[in-house]
Amino acid sequence: ELRNINGEQGAYFTKTKEALQSDALLKTMIEEANGDNQFELIYHSTPENYLKRKGEKKMLEKFAHVFPAMVTPMNEDGSFNYEVAKKHADWMMDNGIGGIGVLMAAGEYQSMSLEEHMEYVNIMVPYIKKRGASVIVGCSRERVEDACALMNNAYKAGADAAMVLPSFYYNQSQEEIIDHYTYLNDNSDLDIMVYNNPNVTSGITRETMKELYKLPHVKIVKDASMVIDVMTDFIFEAEEAEEEKNVLCGCDYLLYQAYATGAVGWISMTANILPKLSADFHNAMIVEKDYQKGLEIYKKLYPVVNMTERYPAPTQAVKHILSEVIGFDEGICRRPRREISDEDKAMVVEWSQIRELAKTNKM
Amino acid sequence: ELRNINGEQGAYFTKTKEALQSDALLKTMIEEANGDNQFELIYHSTPENYLKRKGEKKMLEKFAHVFPAMVTPMNEDGSFNYEVAKKHADWMMDNGIGGIGVLMAAGEYQSMSLEEHMEYVNIMVPYIKKRGASVIVGCSRERVEDACALMNNAYKAGADAAMVLPSFYYNQSQEEIIDHYTYLNDNSDLDIMVYNNPNVTSGITRETMKELYKLPHVKIVKDASMVIDVMTDFIFEAEEAEEEKNVLCGCDYLLYQAYATGAVGWISMTANILPKLSADFHNAMIVEKDYQKGLEIYKKLYPVVNMTERYPAPTQAVKHILSEVIGFDEGICRRPRREISDEDKAMVVEWSQIRELAKTNKM
Amino acid sequence: ELRNINGEQGAYFTKTKEALQSDALLKTMIEEANGDNQFELIYHSTPENYLKRKGEKKMLEKFAHVFPAMVTPMNEDGSFNYEVAKKHADWMMDNGIGGIGVLMAAGEYQSMSLEEHMEYVNIMVPYIKKRGASVIVGCSRERVEDACALMNNAYKAGADAAMVLPSFYYNQSQEEIIDHYTYLNDNSDLDIMVYNNPNVTSGITRETMKELYKLPHVKIVKDASMVIDVMTDFIFEAEEAEEEKNVLCGCDYLLYQAYATGAVGWISMTANILPKLSADFHNAMIVEKDYQKGLEIYKKLYPVVNMTERYPAPTQAVKHILSEVIGFDEGICRRPRREISDEDKAMVVEWSQIRELAKTNKM
Amino acid sequence: ELRNINGEQGAYFTKTKEALQSDALLKTMIEEANGDNQFELIYHSTPENYLKRKGEKKMLEKFAHVFPAMVTPMNEDGSFNYEVAKKHADWMMDNGIGGIGVLMAAGEYQSMSLEEHMEYVNIMVPYIKKRGASVIVGCSRERVEDACALMNNAYKAGADAAMVLPSFYYNQSQEEIIDHYTYLNDNSDLDIMVYNNPNVTSGITRETMKELYKLPHVKIVKDASMVIDVMTDFIFEAEEAEEEKNVLCGCDYLLYQAYATGAVGWISMTANILPKLSADFHNAMIVEKDYQKGLEIYKKLYPVVNMTERYPAPTQAVKHILSEVIGFDEGICRRPRREISDEDKAMVVEWSQIRELAKTNKM
Repeated sequence: ELRNINGEQGAYFTKTKEALQSDALLKTMIEEANGDNQFELIYHSTPENYLKRKGEKKMLEKFAHVFPAMVTPMNEDGSFNYEVAKKHADWMMDNGIGGIGVLMAAGEYQSMSLEEHMEYVNIMVPYIKKRGASVIVGCSRERVEDACALMNNAYKAGADAAMVLPSFYYNQSQEEIIDHYTYLNDNSDLDIMVYNNPNVTSGITRETMKELYKLPHVKIVKDASMVIDVMTDFIFEAEEAEEEKNVLCGCDYLLYQAYATGAVGWISMTANILPKLSADFHNAMIVEKDYQKGLEIYKKLYPVVNMTERYPAPTQAVKHILSEVIGFDEGICRRPRREISDEDKAMVVEWSQIRELAKTNKM
Repeated sequence: ELRNINGEQGAYFTKTKEALQSDALLKTMIEEANGDNQFELIYHSTPENYLKRKGEKKMLEKFAHVFPAMVTPMNEDGSFNYEVAKKHADWMMDNGIGGIGVLMAAGEYQSMSLEEHMEYVNIMVPYIKKRGASVIVGCSRERVEDACALMNNAYKAGADAAMVLPSFYYNQSQEEIIDHYTYLNDNSDLDIMVYNNPNVTSGITRETMKELYKLPHVKIVKDASMVIDVMTDFIFEAEEAEEEKNVLCGCDYLLYQAYATGAVGWISMTANILPKLSADFHNAMIVEKDYQKGLEIYKKLYPVVNMTERYPAPTQAVKHILSEVIGFDEGICRRPRREISDEDKAMVVEWSQIRELAKTNKM
Repeated sequence: ELRNINGEQGAYFTKTKEALQSDALLKTMIEEANGDNQFELIYHSTPENYLKRKGEKKMLEKFAHVFPAMVTPMNEDGSFNYEVAKKHADWMMDNGIGGIGVLMAAGEYQSMSLEEHMEYVNIMVPYIKKRGASVIVGCSRERVEDACALMNNAYKAGADAAMVLPSFYYNQSQEEIIDHYTYLNDNSDLDIMVYNNPNVTSGITRETMKELYKLPHVKIVKDASMVIDVMTDFIFEAEEAEEEKNVLCGCDYLLYQAYATGAVGWISMTANILPKLSADFHNAMIVEKDYQKGLEIYKKLYPVVNMTERYPAPTQAVKHILSEVIGFDEGICRRPRREISDEDKAMVVEWSQIRELAKTNKM
Repeated sequence: ELRNINGEQGAYFTKTKEALQSDALLKTMIEEANGDNQFELIYHSTPENYLKRKGEKKMLEKFAHVFPAMVTPMNEDGSFNYEVAKKHADWMMDNGIGGIGVLMAAGEYQSMSLEEHMEYVNIMVPYIKKRGASVIVGCSRERVEDACALMNNAYKAGADAAMVLPSFYYNQSQEEIIDHYTYLNDNSDLDIMVYNNPNVTSGITRETMKELYKLPHVKIVKDASMVIDVMTDFIFEAEEAEEEKNVLCGCDYLLYQAYATGAVGWISMTANILPKLSADFHNAMIVEKDYQKGLEIYKKLYPVVNMTERYPAPTQAVKHILSEVIGFDEGICRRPRREISDEDKAMVVEWSQIRELAKTNKM
């Protein structure tokens, strides 16, 4: 299998002499690669191995992306502003974003009734999928039956996976966490992104994650433990799993260390406002595997990723920046989120250095 | 005003010469007091002051109680077992309990749909009220609109107050917490017990509580901060409030120190299984004001109050003890709570020394 | 045994007809009691029981006190100012203080070489003992051999006990903590106050304290865990010990709850600046056993006890208040403590409301 | 300047036409590089810039190493076993270790009197320096005057730097931390490794580190905050400093992420028992800059680096492993460290997988 920056260019099986795309022209490949002439040559002993790997590739194609945890634009009365939502999603995809997180915490999914959640998903998921990007939908609910209902709707709407937390009011034991995801695995056809967030729910241990990796629908993990050693545990444990499982970074400021350790994607607050730089970082680390370049981009992102994770009201901050600095009228937040003060608004703009950094975006 | 252990025995106003119950017989009073002949004589300069104090008394009559955070008995399929619920409630009241907490955390209120919650409240609240006990209903929901709907139903059912947390998925700022309770104060007629539980929501500061005390419907506070200094702050701040506000202990093992500092009641896991000893403690501290006696009862309760607060699955533990030791068939827990192991069951029985202590209950 | 506020007034043994001080005049007793005519009559079945109780009394006479953790006055060059130290000690004792803590944390004992520590102890301990007050000397050192050397010196100087922490750089296991105190018990004749301070060393568990209570020289415990439930554990465990062991409150703001639960004394920052009110509180709770009165004094002390425990540089704060508000020239602090800012100085004076409260002191 | 894996091969200054080693043969260079023919070409506009860079190189030559935090072998009576110490140091250097940490926490430096500390340093530092390795000596003491005395002795003995914590009994403010290091900077000629360990002392903020970087003797930082974001802050801040400052990893299990982010060395418990694999990791990341190779070695080290940081008595664990698995008779630990149980000994051997991993060492 011969690959370059544009993906697979052909395949040849040494034992069976079969070849795929055997008539491709090297010249064309090089020209299309825009000056990046690095090729990766992968030997497969059998076509079966190649196909198995292709299956895995498909999983990476789905989930190895920066997924902005997209904010949900609202009118003054709290109703959804789909027009702005679509424009914002389009703009992020135009800037190189390959996946979108719909109705995650930043999308205020806990402020919506089950019906409102489904309505938004039914409109926005097909819209994004049409553009070819992946979609992960936040479906956490305290009652697992409610989470399941949201997942089944998201599945029908075409989502690629659901992000689901353990229960967050009740602190589940590790056994109860396994029961929680087993219930979801058994009662929905949608793939699951297990979400570890020990500040909100019981923390998931490495041993528990090993069990969760055995559930067929559990494909990916978002770790927001805020410490890299837990994410490292999940990454190393994923490598031991029978089927391919992947870990996505769930903490903006641990971005670089997460990718360097093996995370394949990022659920990102930052990408709402800096999609181009976020996508560039991802490409440097995953496609080009150039860690020095990745580190340089990370340094640029550093003020923003710190603000989004450390300022206690990041949704309001991101909506403010989108409205005032970038140019999308995101409107209000629903309860329990209230507007932040003018001092805070000025502070988050200053802290994130966003006026300067926003110039990296394509408008 | 002349009071003894049975409450007010008469009143006489020095300035106006008015008298209430002037023909009561001292002999009868003493006989009815069962050997406790202590009287409290309170001077009121005017009948108005007396009546104002009576109003306050009414508030204490409502809320100065041990409120068991009553578990919700369920059948194998998760449906409510009202028969056991009523028997359990009756038994607790027969043992001297003067108030009941319905559908609090131990009542698994987050495991029920809004409809199920209302159904249970509509049946159980009138049942308890008929016996003359006070009822506080757990109405917390992540969406304040849902909490409000539960409160309005509980109000119609005759509840005395609703226990409400700040939002528990989203960590509210202090301003957002004030907004939360203001919304509830303005949109429901039911009185509110503010519930401070920093392990689940943002902690409420003394300054914020000062603001919440200004809301007319905020009558009482349940503090489950697990540290006595926060409860002390709320008690001392309540004494500064314009209207009467009271604090109830929300941590079983801080019981004695809470009452000694001025808490007037207790939202109690323990009283589910030891109603008599719990009520005796309350009477020693509040009615008899005999702190040495209270401390002695607290020492007896010590193994239980430590188990109920420190064992991580207290609802399952209490249901197990009720079923196996006391004799009420509480059945299963709903998701996200799962059955605890046999080792744990044995351990919580041993830890709490409940087999011995259960003998204090009237059966 | 007949006791009043001034202590034992006489004893009479019913079985043997013996009497002590049988010719004491009731009139004199009452006159000397300054208007407090409450007597406590204690029956002893045998003189042996009486004598045993007397032994216990002696322990309470030694340790049931407010012990100011006395600051160490220093000249500009860091040398000790004994003149101010003696005046300050005298003033506290004149205000009713019955014991003094010498060279505890507030006394900057970790900023002194072993030689300097011994010099200070050799001068100040005899000075205080001459007045009849008890003395506890802070002898913690990272190396237990050094702690032991300080204890042996304090013993010779006449101290009643040494306050000793577990090692504070290395986090000892529970077994290592027991080894630590066993070493001290076996290598010094001085009694020991075990000091639990989980913010500085490993926390001591109830099970470990049970073992430490078996060491003959371990007489008392100072708990600075900052949570009342740990102190409660130590108090309840002390009641199970074969010999009498007592617990002293080591957290200024938990003062009232500690005494209400059974603490017999207080190692106090506050008493440096408010000796009279501190001693009054102690007498209300221990001698008069009037908890309502104790609670009222606690409310007065509340701003000060919160400042001394919550302001991160209490030694500097107390020295500043003594110098600027009370009138003892305490001078500088040694390294690692540096002078606090003028803003902080103003803030701690305001926070503690000390200008008003200082009027309670006898000058 | 032309460099390859063996270091500088020559230099040429474009503006002045000067050249160093202009007659070096490319053939020789390539042959000596053992198959690694990668060259790095660095332009310097002036010879001065080149020389300045050479100075920086010297700093990296000193400090860009794995420094085992070497345990201190002791006889049964607690006296030092210099023979084993020398053998152990030799063996680590034979396995590729380029620097040694003498009398750090694992070296039990807080269990020694000042005199004992100096004696050990006076013997071991010259011994190690003779072999050409760098030496950093642990000189933390609660009293900064004592720390300074230890530093001055270590300087005379030939050490390259002293590791110094802020005071650990007293929690210093940020201003007091700056005062602490300024005192040391001004009163000793030895270079300083600032040691951030928020579990033992007040944590050092990025702003404070910026100030500390201005002290000429502060050359390096050891971060043991156990979170990579604090280390990242220190690394990024170092890049802003006027003079070269470097950060060393102080948490075994964050090793890989630390190097990937820019740490140039490692103060290591693990290297006591796995010097070869530790040195290989360092070379992969720093010399070869091959992060995939580094990550693979990190995965091998993973069980050990987790054990050394998470088992609460790592010094005892490492001494046990050295004695039982590797073959150096390390003897006892001094107080406050006591022998660990047989169960724990077996557990740390199992947890660390050291029997298998020890085969990577050259014996």
